Amino acid sequence: MNLPVGLLSSPPADIRRNRPLDIATLRSAHPDHWMRAAAIRTLAMDAVQAANSGHPGMPMGMADVATVLFEKHLKFDASAPDWADRDRFILSAGHGSMLLYALLHLTGYASMTLEQIRNFRQWGSVTAGHPENFLAKGIETTTGPLGQGLANAVGFAIAEESLRAQFGPKIVDHRTWVIAGDGCLMEGISHEAIGLAGMQKLSKLIVLWDNNNISIDGKISLSDVTDQRARFAAAGWRVLSCNGHDPADIDRALTEAKTSDRPVFVDCKTHIGFGSPKKQDTAGAHGSPLGPDEIEVTKEIYGWPHPAFEIPATIREAWAAIGARGGKARAEWGARVAELSGAKRAEFERRMSGEAPKKLAATIRALKKQNAEAQPKVATRKASEMVLEVVNPVMPETIGGSADLTGSNNTKTGDLGVFDPENRKGRYIHFGIREHGMAGAMNGMALHGGIRPYGGTFLCFTDYARGAMRLSALMGVPAVYVMTHDSIGLGEDGPTHQPVEHLAICRATPNTLTFRPADLIETAEAWELALTSDKTPSVLALSRQNLPTVRTKHATKNLSAQGAYILREAEAKRRVILLATGSEVEIALAARDILEAEDIGTRVVSMPCMELFAAQPDGYRKRVLPGGPVRVAVEAAVRQPWDRWLLGERGREAKSGFVGMDSFGASAPAGRLYEEFGITADAVAEKVRSLL
Amino acid sequence: MNLPVGLLSSPPADIRRNRPLDIATLRSAHPDHWMRAAAIRTLAMDAVQAANSGHPGMPMGMADVATVLFEKHLKFDASAPDWADRDRFILSAGHGSMLLYALLHLTGYASMTLEQIRNFRQWGSVTAGHPENFLAKGIETTTGPLGQGLANAVGFAIAEESLRAQFGPKIVDHRTWVIAGDGCLMEGISHEAIGLAGMQKLSKLIVLWDNNNISIDGKISLSDVTDQRARFAAAGWRVLSCNGHDPADIDRALTEAKTSDRPVFVDCKTHIGFGSPKKQDTAGAHGSPLGPDEIEVTKEIYGWPHPAFEIPATIREAWAAIGARGGKARAEWGARVAELSGAKRAEFERRMSGEAPKKLAATIRALKKQNAEAQPKVATRKASEMVLEVVNPVMPETIGGSADLTGSNNTKTGDLGVFDPENRKGRYIHFGIREHGMAGAMNGMALHGGIRPYGGTFLCFTDYARGAMRLSALMGVPAVYVMTHDSIGLGEDGPTHQPVEHLAICRATPNTLTFRPADLIETAEAWELALTSDKTPSVLALSRQNLPTVRTKHATKNLSAQGAYILREAEAKRRVILLATGSEVEIALAARDILEAEDIGTRVVSMPCMELFAAQPDGYRKRVLPGGPVRVAVEAAVRQPWDRWLLGERGREAKSGFVGMDSFGASAPAGRLYEEFGITADAVAEKVRSLL
Repeated sequence: MNLPVGLLSSPPADIRRNRPLDIATLRSAHPDHWMRAAAIRTLAMDAVQAANSGHPGMPMGMADVATVLFEKHLKFDASAPDWADRDRFILSAGHGSMLLYALLHLTGYASMTLEQIRNFRQWGSVTAGHPENFLAKGIETTTGPLGQGLANAVGFAIAEESLRAQFGPKIVDHRTWVIAGDGCLMEGISHEAIGLAGMQKLSKLIVLWDNNNISIDGKISLSDVTDQRARFAAAGWRVLSCNGHDPADIDRALTEAKTSDRPVFVDCKTHIGFGSPKKQDTAGAHGSPLGPDEIEVTKEIYGWPHPAFEIPATIREAWAAIGARGGKARAEWGARVAELSGAKRAEFERRMSGEAPKKLAATIRALKKQNAEAQPKVATRKASEMVLEVVNPVMPETIGGSADLTGSNNTKTGDLGVFDPENRKGRYIHFGIREHGMAGAMNGMALHGGIRPYGGTFLCFTDYARGAMRLSALMGVPAVYVMTHDSIGLGEDGPTHQPVEHLAICRATPNTLTFRPADLIETAEAWELALTSDKTPSVLALSRQNLPTVRTKHATKNLSAQGAYILREAEAKRRVILLATGSEVEIALAARDILEAEDIGTRVVSMPCMELFAAQPDGYRKRVLPGGPVRVAVEAAVRQPWDRWLLGERGREAKSGFVGMDSFGASAPAGRLYEEFGITADAVAEKVRSLL
Repeated sequence: MNLPVGLLSSPPADIRRNRPLDIATLRSAHPDHWMRAAAIRTLAMDAVQAANSGHPGMPMGMADVATVLFEKHLKFDASAPDWADRDRFILSAGHGSMLLYALLHLTGYASMTLEQIRNFRQWGSVTAGHPENFLAKGIETTTGPLGQGLANAVGFAIAEESLRAQFGPKIVDHRTWVIAGDGCLMEGISHEAIGLAGMQKLSKLIVLWDNNNISIDGKISLSDVTDQRARFAAAGWRVLSCNGHDPADIDRALTEAKTSDRPVFVDCKTHIGFGSPKKQDTAGAHGSPLGPDEIEVTKEIYGWPHPAFEIPATIREAWAAIGARGGKARAEWGARVAELSGAKRAEFERRMSGEAPKKLAATIRALKKQNAEAQPKVATRKASEMVLEVVNPVMPETIGGSADLTGSNNTKTGDLGVFDPENRKGRYIHFGIREHGMAGAMNGMALHGGIRPYGGTFLCFTDYARGAMRLSALMGVPAVYVMTHDSIGLGEDGPTHQPVEHLAICRATPNTLTFRPADLIETAEAWELALTSDKTPSVLALSRQNLPTVRTKHATKNLSAQGAYILREAEAKRRVILLATGSEVEIALAARDILEAEDIGTRVVSMPCMELFAAQPDGYRKRVLPGGPVRVAVEAAVRQPWDRWLLGERGREAKSGFVGMDSFGASAPAGRLYEEFGITADAVAEKVRSLL
């Protein structure tokens, strides 16, 4: 039998890296390493084969790099996956999930049993097709959509820098390691992520590139000629290279990577499906089982005579020792934490738990009370800033930012300071024109723990951030998206900047709270809910234009928590219910005045959050939206999410109508647009009359 | 008065570029150029001031580059904006729209009158806040969302290469010029676009970077340290530099750019708000009027004593001559076209008109007829391939591709050949892992004319392409998005890859046709509609899993064109209407069998396209969905778009229910997922029983 020979392509001059390698040589040069890595490779092959679905090629290709990383560099303790000061390991190339599962299993993470590995990709197992952070400890983030892990990692590294600055290096001092493939690096989000990391000089971020020259369609050269090393260097990264199958060379590169003053990109030259005579270096190794025959031959080449899923005791023990390697460091860290003052330790623990500070509720309440009296007429984006001005001082865990729209999103408050390489205590990030990278980094910050991130752009540009925003929802990350300029009310910038379908998009997404507050009071309530959310991201849709205070009577209770509530009751006999959100609540109230003047009793329901209203008990929902009265909803957006409330949840409830958008907007001053698109109090009143 | 002095930062050694420049020197060295450029600058300042909104800084900064481009390099004829062989000029930094409007006005585009310039950003004008291609000739694409124009331009350049290969360089031989700013270059889509262009060696694509070192938040260094020149070089581009205010140096760079064998990136060092004493080189020049006083001072510096919007006759004449400069080349081109054979000329004209070939209808009909008999059980992604196998040979204007999922999206047919630098006649593009760049390039190809682009990825990854997909809809571009793996039916890859909200997203977007065909017949009908669409993009949501043929009786008519139709009528007295799309039509039919066996008369309505159904006359809609019978919809996705059809468009129509998803999916084989999420015929039957 011919052993497959890989002539490894040549990173800059190093004889070791340029030498043709064969597996026999590797096996004999590093026999213990080889067998540890073979345990990963064979588990991946076996699990994918058993599932008859999955991606064996990447774990086979990156097993050597991962083995060296876990054995010698990654700071972790498998018995304590929640250790706050552990290194984070992010598998951005999430299709190689079996690499991660094998590592967690072999090092002894309790939830990653052999049974789970055997049930790879099956219902109820924690070993999903792509890693899902909410299924098992040790999975730091959910990956699979390419490039997301890389962007998350930038957020993890930012969180570490911030917390280290706040709590000191004795308590926080760890690295973020990423494995990324060509797919991650071709995605646009990677550009945003590496640009942000380079500017921020995140020296504790190390990206290991699985440079195997293969994507699903075939050779990378089919679609890309990018010199990745030059590209990362251009973004301000340190660039290293290694032979990704030579443990000594990998160790050298990782050791060097830890000395950098900038983020590090390690070009690991690897072979996808390493060792498989028929599949190595082909796209065929990427996303399908190798097949029983090929597995048999490949295991023979590996020198691995064991049946499927069987790991010899000596190899198990070696891996278990690796899993326990960090125990000492963790104990020492625990001792250092114990030495903190009681207050500081309590604060650190609160921060890592994600619990909001006790002061938050009173702060919000005070702001509401004051402004129910002051009744300012401000845009809700400005209202949001007013909330943040009082919240940020009492919530040191917030890190805010904007995708280069700071003055428009009103996301920066006086006390934050700018987070940059010279000021790690700063809590405001100039994310640059990078909506997707911002959202991905926010996910990483929140997943790291200790940070509650918020970030702003225009609501329309949720389009650019969608990939990461969906993952906030799927992962259950309470990130806060501050989305201003939330309708045609933004005016002259025109339809490219005017959201019409974006509220529908956010509301269609599971596990997402979409708030569209009507005034400062509702904005404060929305922020309170967003900042105390445990497992759900929030989108705050905020106006560019000024809005009057409509909640003029102070309520201690957070009325927005019920999603919708009666803002004004009918005076005449109730024949109409108007529903509205945000900037259109003002219009609904004006329509009510018109109708009441005609003796048409009209209730106005403000509905800042449909998802929360849907979660209310039936009785409450019926009280707010009783059957009978005509219902008309007003929102400067598409109707799709409204049908449920207009047509009645059980059908048959009411005649109804909608005043909103059914096309893209246009470029003109906001007032003119509202007129031209017929979103006015008169139009609402007329719609009501036509239905009565 | 102090003239502002800009010490121009230094691209590689060139004394001219390193020399401090002041406006007095520039004015005296190139007086005619200076005044032509000043006409642009002052129109931009005046229009933004009149609108009291807009972006003067960029036009003021890039006026010199644009003047040299239009005067000496751009092939165009203002009197013939539809000239097929014109160079395309793409303003990717769309906020600088006044630069484009001023150029079109000054060179004499008929629709860009001074009246329009005066009405910048007003209702009904063609001078929208950001350029909208559908408002006026000469605006090649809609920009504003950053980076999109750059990605479009890659598509324009691909279209040019493809058409040149097909029709010869005498008929097609032009360039694509782009102005891009730092915002464009920070966005992730720029990475995807430049990677694709670099690999494809699109030598007739030239990007002019408005390198002014300022973004909205302030200095670029607040958020980025990327060496853009090195970055473009790493992606395979030729990189040039020039002083963006020195016409001779600009001319030198553009002349050199035209000799490249690769796409060209020209670093034009500029000053935002050039000449404004208080605003130059500050973010303050970006997005607000300068104010009357600052305009006055700036005009004085320019040597421009004329009132607002006034252009002296000599300058007008010089610009008009520039606008007419291309007339001769156009006449020569016309003569060459006239020399073509009648058939070839007719085909060229048909191609540029966007009209589908006559053969298409018969081809689709034959395929439908054949398969209504053969009744294959194939996934609709495979069905889509079968359609393309017969369509691509009769439609030479199709260019297909996939974001590295060719074998999964089934987008490549036998006859296409691969489009790459060695084979410009190829019609299949390996777009790489670049969903956003792909969609942006598709928009460009379609806008160029002569090409009907389609591109594939998983439906879930519309998230990555959303920014460009929305622009397809806004611009009215009939691109076809082949979105496979359209539900939990994709199985083991899990919730990161399983769309649940994406049908709702596509349906919420104005001017988008979302097709979810149930079998090969409906897939063929959907393709026919997509390929004959004039002004609307289509999304084809296609299954991974095999589906039976449900349209077993051949109909010549395209039933999907009505959006929904009666697939099976009730046998027993009609008490129930089941609505379904795609893979769930099979489930609805099975539920009907169960219910009919219980003597519950059940109609099944297949609803491949809600938008087309909504556009049908009231009578047809009532015939398909009469009031009275219980309605239950089945779709493995969220309910949001269904409420309209379930609850009745006028309310009160029917008791109803929905069987679908209300959460993210999970990783397991598809059959198991349908069971666990309760999307089965039994569940549908049970839901019906509970409602009767």
